[in-house]
Amino acid sequence: MILLLGASGYIGQAFARELQRRQWPFQPLSRTEADYTRFDVLLEFLKKHKPAFLVNAAGYTGKPNVDACEVARADTLAGNTLLPQTLAQACAVSAIPWGHVSSGCIFSGAKVTSNGQTHTEKDLTRPDLRSLVEQSPGAIHGFTETDPPNFTFRDPPCSFYSGTKASGEEVIAGIGQNYIWRLRIPFDEFDSARNYLSKVQRYEKVYDNVNSISHRADFAAACLDLWERRAPFGIYNVTNPGFVTTRQVVDLVEQILKPARRFEFWQNDTEFYRKAAKTPRSNCVLDASKLLATGVKIRPVLEALEDSLRKWKPE
Amino acid sequence: MILLLGASGYIGQAFARELQRRQWPFQPLSRTEADYTRFDVLLEFLKKHKPAFLVNAAGYTGKPNVDACEVARADTLAGNTLLPQTLAQACAVSAIPWGHVSSGCIFSGAKVTSNGQTHTEKDLTRPDLRSLVEQSPGAIHGFTETDPPNFTFRDPPCSFYSGTKASGEEVIAGIGQNYIWRLRIPFDEFDSARNYLSKVQRYEKVYDNVNSISHRADFAAACLDLWERRAPFGIYNVTNPGFVTTRQVVDLVEQILKPARRFEFWQNDTEFYRKAAKTPRSNCVLDASKLLATGVKIRPVLEALEDSLRKWKPE
Repeated sequence: MILLLGASGYIGQAFARELQRRQWPFQPLSRTEADYTRFDVLLEFLKKHKPAFLVNAAGYTGKPNVDACEVARADTLAGNTLLPQTLAQACAVSAIPWGHVSSGCIFSGAKVTSNGQTHTEKDLTRPDLRSLVEQSPGAIHGFTETDPPNFTFRDPPCSFYSGTKASGEEVIAGIGQNYIWRLRIPFDEFDSARNYLSKVQRYEKVYDNVNSISHRADFAAACLDLWERRAPFGIYNVTNPGFVTTRQVVDLVEQILKPARRFEFWQNDTEFYRKAAKTPRSNCVLDASKLLATGVKIRPVLEALEDSLRKWKPE
Repeated sequence: MILLLGASGYIGQAFARELQRRQWPFQPLSRTEADYTRFDVLLEFLKKHKPAFLVNAAGYTGKPNVDACEVARADTLAGNTLLPQTLAQACAVSAIPWGHVSSGCIFSGAKVTSNGQTHTEKDLTRPDLRSLVEQSPGAIHGFTETDPPNFTFRDPPCSFYSGTKASGEEVIAGIGQNYIWRLRIPFDEFDSARNYLSKVQRYEKVYDNVNSISHRADFAAACLDLWERRAPFGIYNVTNPGFVTTRQVVDLVEQILKPARRFEFWQNDTEFYRKAAKTPRSNCVLDASKLLATGVKIRPVLEALEDSLRKWKPE
């Protein structure tokens, strides 16, 4: 039996659907049934039910956006750092392997090759880099699993949310047997307040940046594939290979959905942060080659994007 | 055997001295000997050495002051929240009782009685409250162990340090058997960068506020007394009973040490925070009656203060 935490959340739902589709026996566990944030309660539950694997899709994301985490700091810390540590320690004691939904938002920017040298750029909105993104996308490389996160409490600035997600990875790495699955900006065909494609369509103005992103069902399937194949434990970037600019996403939305509205963009970072955001945002490119090298299949980003828009289901 | 973490720190030293004085067998453990911040390493160590009790005097305090914790957020979080959670969970699994050095700095202000009603005031520097402190000290009551901390991520504003200390209490409360010992502004007769009496003498200007404070050796003795008496596990405010204003402390320093310098005070909070501090400071009164009710003896604050100044040992 697979134990699923956070089954009612946006990502947890995708795991539940994928587990059902595969007909793998699983049990969603809510905090009202057993408060798994308490080490003693969790340990007793694990000893009694002996799951073969545990999926942690629980965590604290701000609503309507990450700015809310700057205010709800206790819950953000509890959901994204303290819970993972408790899970890691209880699973280690119980010898239960597990997987944790982490986030790529602990990175900012990408690695950029110019004049034969590769270095990190934290902000790809700079005009010269933006030209590079459009004209020489091959010069832009995603962060790999061995690159140290650079949008964290250790490497500020970062949002409180990103800081706690990065600390969440640190406290579980190497404690027992676990996967750290990095999700980035989930999207799919189902219109929802959490769906990137819905957000882009609803923003008053769009913030143009460069990102790797994760199709929600592709993400859940890839995570479960890693476990099914018994891929080595550790960190995996689980994004649809490649990256997109927000402008590309808007172009696809316009081409495929033909919305009545026109899209406007924030002129630059300064305007965006002054008017629309309180805490710094992560925008980054991740390298999914480690995932692909295990043999797990996941669609390239443009294919997943176009497919979602063609199947678009308004709320 | 008692296992002592953080033995080389300012509070750890006091525990080591008190344990030696009592001739209780103890073992200081450093992170270079065994990295006790790692759950697996700690668990193996506990299973092998089976301490009867563990004292956690390790933690992260900013140097030279709490403002440094706003920058070193990863270390502050690791030392003050993640380590306590790891200790609680490893000790629970190993059935080892333990004590954690927490801090009263998760509170701000005091409970104030006026017109027969008692309510919380977060800032005792307000002129009307300051008069009350001086003229009717009986109207000022310390926070007890059942009062919810009010200078935390849950009840902002707070410093990052205070937020992580409060979260540290939350993650260990009720997990296994432990004492939460709340220290406040340590002092004694040994001149040191961490000693409140040294700080007061070295500040360019003094910030006048109202606080409960803890004599360092009295604190360590009272903590060990709680364990020796097998007092119920849980939270204890371990401060010298009563409270003092910084002005009273300065007056005592002037009377007893007769320093050449004159002391100046910041005019008000606004001036202090503009010129001398980056993050909000906790100033608070704690009620030590729960500690005293167990039968543990600890000197009233003025007695401990005067004694320290009379025995003053400059660096």
